[in-house]
Amino acid sequence: MTFATILFAHGARDPQWAEPFERIRERMLAARPGLDVRLAYLELMTPSLEDAVAACAAKGVTGIRLIPLFMAQGGHLKQDLPKKIAALQQRHPGVVIAVSPPIGEADAILDLIAAWALDESAR
Amino acid sequence: MTFATILFAHGARDPQWAEPFERIRERMLAARPGLDVRLAYLELMTPSLEDAVAACAAKGVTGIRLIPLFMAQGGHLKQDLPKKIAALQQRHPGVVIAVSPPIGEADAILDLIAAWALDESAR
Repeated sequence: MTFATILFAHGARDPQWAEPFERIRERMLAARPGLDVRLAYLELMTPSLEDAVAACAAKGVTGIRLIPLFMAQGGHLKQDLPKKIAALQQRHPGVVIAVSPPIGEADAILDLIAAWALDESAR
Repeated sequence: MTFATILFAHGARDPQWAEPFERIRERMLAARPGLDVRLAYLELMTPSLEDAVAACAAKGVTGIRLIPLFMAQGGHLKQDLPKKIAALQQRHPGVVIAVSPPIGEADAILDLIAAWALDESAR
């Protein structure tokens, strides 16, 4: 299989909004050069998830790890995303898409955010 | 001064969405029992930021550290929040409100998210 990773974020009107997600991608590439890791957005920014998956499929990717860079599980991840994934699986039957939990379900990340918030609250 | 910390999140229709933020608050309290740390939401969940600040003021709080639990700087933090803070400062002149950067601007958090995303992409 040929793999790609898609970092999936909400999107916003303000271009500055994408910067943390671009920085996460750059850090991943610095740690693992040559990794196929792309950004995709639910709305307001490009590429859309549909375009990112189509680009992967066109390149011969057969396995996609989709990592939602969302803080929490809400309607976007519980309703919108499964519908999109089902439609994408139909459109690209040769591509397997596996979806990770949102970052707010990773204990280590919550621990660090809590420690950072404690530092901030002591400032 | 009497201090309080407000963790400010976007809010969503789905109650499950609040869980990571509640867990962050619980971890802060576990590390620093007695800390006055509250959640507040921009929309769709309660309390609103206005209600949380009013509750702090009613309790005699004179300094609030507001920590936006947003991944990135977009219209909500660059436009909506400053307007809300200005209105709150007028309504509660005895309460000083200091605003932290969003979590996506904390390098250590981006590093950990990138490391976690690398682990996920290797699964």
